[in-house]
Amino acid sequence: MSKVRGGRVKFDPKRILMSGGATGANELIMFCLADPGDAFLVPTPYYAAYPRDLCWRTGLQLIPVHCDSSNNFKITREALESSYKKAKDDNINVKGLIITNPSNPLGTSLDHDTLKSLVSFTNDKNIHLVCDEIYAATVFDSPRFVSVAEIVQEMDDSSLKKELIHIVYSLSKDMGFPGFRVGIVYSYNDTVVNCGRKMSSFGLISSQTQHMLAAMLSDDEFVDNFLKKNSLRLAKRHEHFAKGLEEINIKRFPSNAGLFYWMNLSTLLKEQTFDAEMALWRVIINEVKLNVSPGSSFNCLEPGWFRVCFANMDDETVEVALNRIRAFVIGNKKETTTNNSSRGKKSVVEVKKRWQQNLRLSFSSSRILDHHENVMSPHILSPHSPIPASSSPLVQAT
Amino acid sequence: MSKVRGGRVKFDPKRILMSGGATGANELIMFCLADPGDAFLVPTPYYAAYPRDLCWRTGLQLIPVHCDSSNNFKITREALESSYKKAKDDNINVKGLIITNPSNPLGTSLDHDTLKSLVSFTNDKNIHLVCDEIYAATVFDSPRFVSVAEIVQEMDDSSLKKELIHIVYSLSKDMGFPGFRVGIVYSYNDTVVNCGRKMSSFGLISSQTQHMLAAMLSDDEFVDNFLKKNSLRLAKRHEHFAKGLEEINIKRFPSNAGLFYWMNLSTLLKEQTFDAEMALWRVIINEVKLNVSPGSSFNCLEPGWFRVCFANMDDETVEVALNRIRAFVIGNKKETTTNNSSRGKKSVVEVKKRWQQNLRLSFSSSRILDHHENVMSPHILSPHSPIPASSSPLVQAT
Repeated sequence: MSKVRGGRVKFDPKRILMSGGATGANELIMFCLADPGDAFLVPTPYYAAYPRDLCWRTGLQLIPVHCDSSNNFKITREALESSYKKAKDDNINVKGLIITNPSNPLGTSLDHDTLKSLVSFTNDKNIHLVCDEIYAATVFDSPRFVSVAEIVQEMDDSSLKKELIHIVYSLSKDMGFPGFRVGIVYSYNDTVVNCGRKMSSFGLISSQTQHMLAAMLSDDEFVDNFLKKNSLRLAKRHEHFAKGLEEINIKRFPSNAGLFYWMNLSTLLKEQTFDAEMALWRVIINEVKLNVSPGSSFNCLEPGWFRVCFANMDDETVEVALNRIRAFVIGNKKETTTNNSSRGKKSVVEVKKRWQQNLRLSFSSSRILDHHENVMSPHILSPHSPIPASSSPLVQAT
Repeated sequence: MSKVRGGRVKFDPKRILMSGGATGANELIMFCLADPGDAFLVPTPYYAAYPRDLCWRTGLQLIPVHCDSSNNFKITREALESSYKKAKDDNINVKGLIITNPSNPLGTSLDHDTLKSLVSFTNDKNIHLVCDEIYAATVFDSPRFVSVAEIVQEMDDSSLKKELIHIVYSLSKDMGFPGFRVGIVYSYNDTVVNCGRKMSSFGLISSQTQHMLAAMLSDDEFVDNFLKKNSLRLAKRHEHFAKGLEEINIKRFPSNAGLFYWMNLSTLLKEQTFDAEMALWRVIINEVKLNVSPGSSFNCLEPGWFRVCFANMDDETVEVALNRIRAFVIGNKKETTTNNSSRGKKSVVEVKKRWQQNLRLSFSSSRILDHHENVMSPHILSPHSPIPASSSPLVQAT
């Protein structure tokens, strides 16, 4: 944890709680901090599975703090105050604020001042601040990642109520170990540490895996190299993907972290509604065969945003993905032109066929094709979602 | 699972839910079946951590079905009806019955007819039956273990509502893998399977561990040998320990399974109360230095019962334990005699010193002594307990 944060902060091992993945860690901290019916504020857009992880079994509720593209989805004090006031007016007991830093789905890390303002806001209101820092090591460009632990360290001599601050961490994203189910809660609150430790029996980490990880993470050289290389590779992939999108004029949100892009496809929507966003999502999933997540699943207020992951595939697959996007956007433009000239349905099919042919050319073997068809098929959308409708885009988000 | 049940039943892999240990599996099935405030019946004495595992975070409550030694703690229909009626009278919504078969702490497996009667009872009342079978492979003597899955198979053509039946399993006890955190829920209920699968994200098993276990459990010869040897060794240890206890006239409950004895120390109580039981427990923990669990922590209605684990130690340690018990019981008898002859406090100290000296002789090296002192020290009682008081005997039970 310290290495990922540039060695700028020290963590006390006694304050670390282990849990089954970030999913279990997020639930654990909520069980510790809130009773059923209590609420946590969460800036939008936010991780699509938060309702499951934070609320499903704990019975608490999320109050969105709506942010928008007009100021680059900045979390402003005004937006926080507004959501907090509304909740209070509705007689809802607000227990805290949870943020994801770096953000999923935005792919941005919070700057020092914004983070400090969130600490101040939560301290002023005497509510908890939970910082989900599971993407900490995915920051590959400036500004550098600032952990809330740094803010705590800076403000520690002042009247900071650090017992209101908690960090969620995991090795799933930063070390690429999602299958190892290593989730961590780091809390500055003694009561939470005591309570959470008793709760960790529900999601302990396999001793075999702990043993291997202890050996692996004790190897400073390996970890340093891994983090460095990972960052360089992410930067490279990010740049490559960005260029591909720029070529076809797809707007993407400027990002410096994460394993994904937040891209704006609003120009492809038939109308600026979430229904149109869902319609486009279905086309992308079922016909373009790309596994993207619509903004509505992240509770984004503006239709047309989509999150596309670029990190979990090899170089060849990236080209397949870019070709598919390219073909789809070009096809879509032609389709729009064709529709405008009233040539009707037949030519739409022709256009589709054209880009489908283009795509097939980009595959090097049928085995890879099969593989990708499987990976991207909506039939194997993650079953680990509480959302009953199997067609829900929420099950896409990871 | 099938092997452990003598190959007499077949399990459908699609009905298996994985979870982080039996702790997580027990919680998962409760989250699926009950709402906060709902209740489950549970025969006494029962696993001391059930209140944590089943109720702490789910908000449900346990209604004891009191069983006693007069009929060997048999779970009778009368006792079940009585607890069920009382709960109904108190306007409590009874959602099911949970049993541990083989029993922890009794070390006995349920016979076929009793198990069938429990299925009938729950079916008649239209409530769920959860069978915690985590000690299935610890049966080392007749009667053989009967899984509820066999009853389901037998009654499947009749009007059995098998969707009310669920099995909890784990590899912690049967295969000796508690650290691997492999818990399983096997449910005959499609809705539970669907819901539980979405919930399993909170306690998934490390992929590394899954990989190793798949290889290990696919080796039929290894598993068959392991189960056979395990059973033989348990039987041998059970017999050896039994003889040791018989020599000093300690009554133990006749058992055929489990990793522990349920022994009756009521003759050592100063009076037949739970306060006296706790007083004796403290002496055993702090002075005799044996890690036993008092019956009250298992919600047993009769004072004086204690559970002692005999399986998780090597032969030498067994001798140390038996020597300690022997010395304590003999010392205790001498103490009683001495007290009766009004010689006062000094001689009690003398007696204690004597059996402490005896004990020291039984250790082969100071390293082992240190080790055992640590293992048995109350200072390292399991921290994974929701019970706040560190002196609670509940934290002893595993």
